Amino acid sequence: MQVKIHFDNNALDDYSIFIDEMKELHFDTKVAIITNPKVSGLHLKKLLQKITAKELYIVTVPDGEEYKNSQTLDFILENLFNHRFDRSSILIAFGGGVIGDMTGFGASIFQRGIDFIQIPTTLLSQVDASVGGKTGINNKFGKNLIGAFYQPKAVYIETAFLETLPSREFGAGVAEMVKMAVTFDSEFFSFLENADLYDKKDLSYAIEKSVQTKAKVVSLDEKEKGIRAVLNYGHTFAHVIENLTNYRRFLHGEAVAVGMVMANALAMKLNLLSLEDDKRVKELLKKYNLPISYEIENIELFYEGFFHDKKTQNASIKFILPKGIGDYEIVKDLDKELILEVLSGFSS
Amino acid sequence: MQVKIHFDNNALDDYSIFIDEMKELHFDTKVAIITNPKVSGLHLKKLLQKITAKELYIVTVPDGEEYKNSQTLDFILENLFNHRFDRSSILIAFGGGVIGDMTGFGASIFQRGIDFIQIPTTLLSQVDASVGGKTGINNKFGKNLIGAFYQPKAVYIETAFLETLPSREFGAGVAEMVKMAVTFDSEFFSFLENADLYDKKDLSYAIEKSVQTKAKVVSLDEKEKGIRAVLNYGHTFAHVIENLTNYRRFLHGEAVAVGMVMANALAMKLNLLSLEDDKRVKELLKKYNLPISYEIENIELFYEGFFHDKKTQNASIKFILPKGIGDYEIVKDLDKELILEVLSGFSS
Repeated sequence: MQVKIHFDNNALDDYSIFIDEMKELHFDTKVAIITNPKVSGLHLKKLLQKITAKELYIVTVPDGEEYKNSQTLDFILENLFNHRFDRSSILIAFGGGVIGDMTGFGASIFQRGIDFIQIPTTLLSQVDASVGGKTGINNKFGKNLIGAFYQPKAVYIETAFLETLPSREFGAGVAEMVKMAVTFDSEFFSFLENADLYDKKDLSYAIEKSVQTKAKVVSLDEKEKGIRAVLNYGHTFAHVIENLTNYRRFLHGEAVAVGMVMANALAMKLNLLSLEDDKRVKELLKKYNLPISYEIENIELFYEGFFHDKKTQNASIKFILPKGIGDYEIVKDLDKELILEVLSGFSS
Repeated sequence: MQVKIHFDNNALDDYSIFIDEMKELHFDTKVAIITNPKVSGLHLKKLLQKITAKELYIVTVPDGEEYKNSQTLDFILENLFNHRFDRSSILIAFGGGVIGDMTGFGASIFQRGIDFIQIPTTLLSQVDASVGGKTGINNKFGKNLIGAFYQPKAVYIETAFLETLPSREFGAGVAEMVKMAVTFDSEFFSFLENADLYDKKDLSYAIEKSVQTKAKVVSLDEKEKGIRAVLNYGHTFAHVIENLTNYRRFLHGEAVAVGMVMANALAMKLNLLSLEDDKRVKELLKKYNLPISYEIENIELFYEGFFHDKKTQNASIKFILPKGIGDYEIVKDLDKELILEVLSGFSS
């Protein structure tokens, strides 16, 4: 299945998304595959059967969010300069979100921008991170604080790469699918309730649906000045949880699952969501062993955490809340007391 | 005079250029002025009379091309993080091309892009570098090898800042004006022949004309896949000269002056330019004390220098040549012998 996406409103180059049909690709230019040892060990052989280039380089960087920094980026760029890459050269991100974010950012600043392709190997990056052009690295001040909006030329999604994915990581990807269903598409939510995502056919359909939703939102608002912010449903809470647990206890998708449950509690308080719909979301998350609770130790501290997020502008917090299943509402300027009350539901 | 420029074909945000009417500006956000000690000493007081902001910071970086690197960029970014700049904050580049290139690049990657404004203080940056969105830094592999295409929101050109400009730097700016006149606008060339650019009225007109020409070309081809390359007239030779002289003997604009004379020699060889028009260009350059010759020591070495330029794709050199005065031709795949013959005219 190929989805050709044209970013009308932003006049970006159009790009294609290929799902489950990793064709043979030949490039008449220099190409570098950026990957990590784990993905390389599991899947590189398979990829190399599909790709040929004028000159093909493999750049392997350490695995993990803690290496998504300027040192690793410099290492990637040095490789390109040493191999005399030029403006016609192409980068391929082969791995999860960390690899995709760094490769995309590297492509965006190498000689003021060269083409790059995403071949995501985790469910989370297949349904979310690889689409939409958010690239970047972390620094000592926080996550993704240096980066660019830079679209890949194509995204190849091959579900075969998911067969080796640990089940917690699989669940983390499902959480982002649920996110899109709850805020944008009640039919898709029903599908997810009835589907078995461990079945390849259901999985492919769910990936396709998520990618289409994401791509549509991005095409309407590439730089997150409006509707794209809705993709942050669950994330405002998740970022605080990740910070408080030093990014160790939960995978990002798991923190998003808990974050959605918290957002839903706030939505119920504001009469945007029924108890029944809240339950449906929880049931769906539980089906994929996603966490739906987190014990808040200090409510005030948690509340302060909202203001450390780079997306918090001028000290007003914006909450993305579900309006029933399949719609959303963006809520601002809520009373601190009200929020604390909701948070207290998560402390003992 | 205000020029509102809309980048139709690239759907960039439109931006404005103000010439000689530096109004008072108030920003409801955090603002950082990025400048160097020299510009700051001469002109900051004047600028601060015009600008107010919610919070206003001055970030001073060392003066000179050798500081246009990742260390200085990191220093700028650290300042922004320390002062808790967010996505609504604004940077102002206050200085010449080096300051503009670094500030623009910093703005492009800070939290995936914030707004920036150019207030160029040299003639070269007023007529050329501040318009068009080429930003970047140098590294050990070469000049401008890391960067982005990123447009400023506005460019304020105040000729009062030029009153303290050393005369060689003034001439360097004139060279870029001549470049645009020769390739795009014979009327403007005639104007320059008859004008006295030390006269403020003539100077303002010439700046306006250059900026309009540059902006028009950029609007047609932001990412230099076509016509924008014509702005490199003289530059293919100039970069080799700058490399061979370690960027010490000539200012960039001076090297461009010599480069144009060399390009013209090649154009004459190909019957694109008459001896008479070549003479007109030389006379105009001489009027502003620009160099029109450079003694090539080793022709082969000079020729090889063409291939070290990042713009040289797949080892074919593209020459931008004048076709008479006011038009251009892009010439590729010339015989090496022919080029060596032209170069030999510049060796003793």
